[in-house]
Amino acid sequence: MPESSGGAEAEPAAAMRARVRASFERQVMMTTLGAELVSVERGRVELAIPYDARFTQQHGFLHAGAVAAVLDSACGYAAFSVMPPEAAVLTVTYSINLLAPAAGERFVMTGTVVRAGRTLVVCRGEAVASGAGVPATAGEAAPFAVMQATLTALYDRPGIRH
Amino acid sequence: MPESSGGAEAEPAAAMRARVRASFERQVMMTTLGAELVSVERGRVELAIPYDARFTQQHGFLHAGAVAAVLDSACGYAAFSVMPPEAAVLTVTYSINLLAPAAGERFVMTGTVVRAGRTLVVCRGEAVASGAGVPATAGEAAPFAVMQATLTALYDRPGIRH
Amino acid sequence: MPESSGGAEAEPAAAMRARVRASFERQVMMTTLGAELVSVERGRVELAIPYDARFTQQHGFLHAGAVAAVLDSACGYAAFSVMPPEAAVLTVTYSINLLAPAAGERFVMTGTVVRAGRTLVVCRGEAVASGAGVPATAGEAAPFAVMQATLTALYDRPGIRH
Amino acid sequence: MPESSGGAEAEPAAAMRARVRASFERQVMMTTLGAELVSVERGRVELAIPYDARFTQQHGFLHAGAVAAVLDSACGYAAFSVMPPEAAVLTVTYSINLLAPAAGERFVMTGTVVRAGRTLVVCRGEAVASGAGVPATAGEAAPFAVMQATLTALYDRPGIRH
Repeated sequence: MPESSGGAEAEPAAAMRARVRASFERQVMMTTLGAELVSVERGRVELAIPYDARFTQQHGFLHAGAVAAVLDSACGYAAFSVMPPEAAVLTVTYSINLLAPAAGERFVMTGTVVRAGRTLVVCRGEAVASGAGVPATAGEAAPFAVMQATLTALYDRPGIRH
Repeated sequence: MPESSGGAEAEPAAAMRARVRASFERQVMMTTLGAELVSVERGRVELAIPYDARFTQQHGFLHAGAVAAVLDSACGYAAFSVMPPEAAVLTVTYSINLLAPAAGERFVMTGTVVRAGRTLVVCRGEAVASGAGVPATAGEAAPFAVMQATLTALYDRPGIRH
Repeated sequence: MPESSGGAEAEPAAAMRARVRASFERQVMMTTLGAELVSVERGRVELAIPYDARFTQQHGFLHAGAVAAVLDSACGYAAFSVMPPEAAVLTVTYSINLLAPAAGERFVMTGTVVRAGRTLVVCRGEAVASGAGVPATAGEAAPFAVMQATLTALYDRPGIRH
Repeated sequence: MPESSGGAEAEPAAAMRARVRASFERQVMMTTLGAELVSVERGRVELAIPYDARFTQQHGFLHAGAVAAVLDSACGYAAFSVMPPEAAVLTVTYSINLLAPAAGERFVMTGTVVRAGRTLVVCRGEAVASGAGVPATAGEAAPFAVMQATLTALYDRPGIRH
């Protein structure tokens, strides 16, 4: 992965936030999952989803696929927030560990940039549950899933909007 | 990962298939995504989903989260198919590479057991698209996503059915 | 991954440190790489290696294999430090991101437990370089490699000492 | 990951093999590990190492770090073999599953290209053991480790030779 890029620093924070929000609102799957854009800082994005019986696995917990989708988006938007305004973002690969069943009523997924290169950005993601059903032993802030993700900036691809 | 387990070999294939199908039908998220259980062999499971605009990302392609959810389930059921009948299966971790946008009308996800130990099973997953929109250059059988997944067998956990 | 285990808490810290050090000293590869056990806390282990021309890749930097070996060991011993004294530890899987070339004179690898279950422990690893050759832009504490690792506790395996 | 690149097709196979061999011979760590370049085809590279007590872990088996280093190189050279002659190759990230201890006398690591894009190439790696000590139950061809790796092509980086 190449050297750090400070290119996005010139963009005002408000413009960056508007850019992230506009892209997030075009992700139909996030709407379908009921995902909410909780906070956007440069290099750190928080999304949240409620428990929804439509997206459960065979034991009644939220399906890892829903968890992974929102964690991946949190990492993707964290990466997007440090990219130049003209870039589009795509996930290259991620690794996810499911540490405990996704028990609870609300799930907050946070993506944080670990290192940003010229085209590749590496992020970490953490998913934390709250509400009834979260095991007391887990601790307030113990993540039930963690992710290590590699995102790429794309430029000038026809059909690929931000 | 420990030595191979041949414990499941004693279970008749029809019983194993019925066990996989019963668990699959309890995964509400699979129903929500329109997933279909295409084929079940010992150590190899194929699932398929149609394109669905509700599960798309910002560029109009199927969201990686939907792809990952079904690939994860294909790997999970491949692992489950070689586990003893009394085991429940949970995904410990997976790594996914998104090789190309999920363009197409139908997506077939195949999970295959690479090695089965006493409690841990490692699988590979491949996602292949068909129908209008699949780039001709991709080739008939070129996967647009691949996964390497680690699953675990659980026994005697209250509240965890198969 | 199952619920947290607090089983190791009963072991005095000095006994735990001696247990980790004794196992580390049996890892011949760590000796060959010149690795040093810098610090051991419950759930957090730091190892360090010097630059060594014998372990370089084609561009003259430390080979990713040497980096990964020591990061994997740091994660392994972090996991081992929270396991019961009678357990042996094995790595199940890890994912590593190589963020920048391993340039520098000394490399510190830190493994930290994210979550410890009954048999599976998930850790994060970070590798940081110091000395001549580290790009100034990288920042003092910027990792050049990060890892997400899954370790397992083994009991009563003949031939597997701690 | 972008569309397939057929750019390397124009290079004669003998030139490609010479290019891979020349780069391999500059990897000092491969020499230190006793690694041998067994075969090179476009998109598939086989390396082998002997058992060596200097690179063992605490249970006397070959250390996962040695396994990973050679698997990573096998994947790296498989990717390099399909890149344009002027490119250098770096590993971005990989995920490795250690399926069984590295028991045996000789270890063959094979890297195979899954998909080659313009700058990113995804490979799979498999490690197979032979000789005394390999568990008979494992089967002749059963891998004891598998890898999923993402490599990148670099152009015009000062100080980065092929």
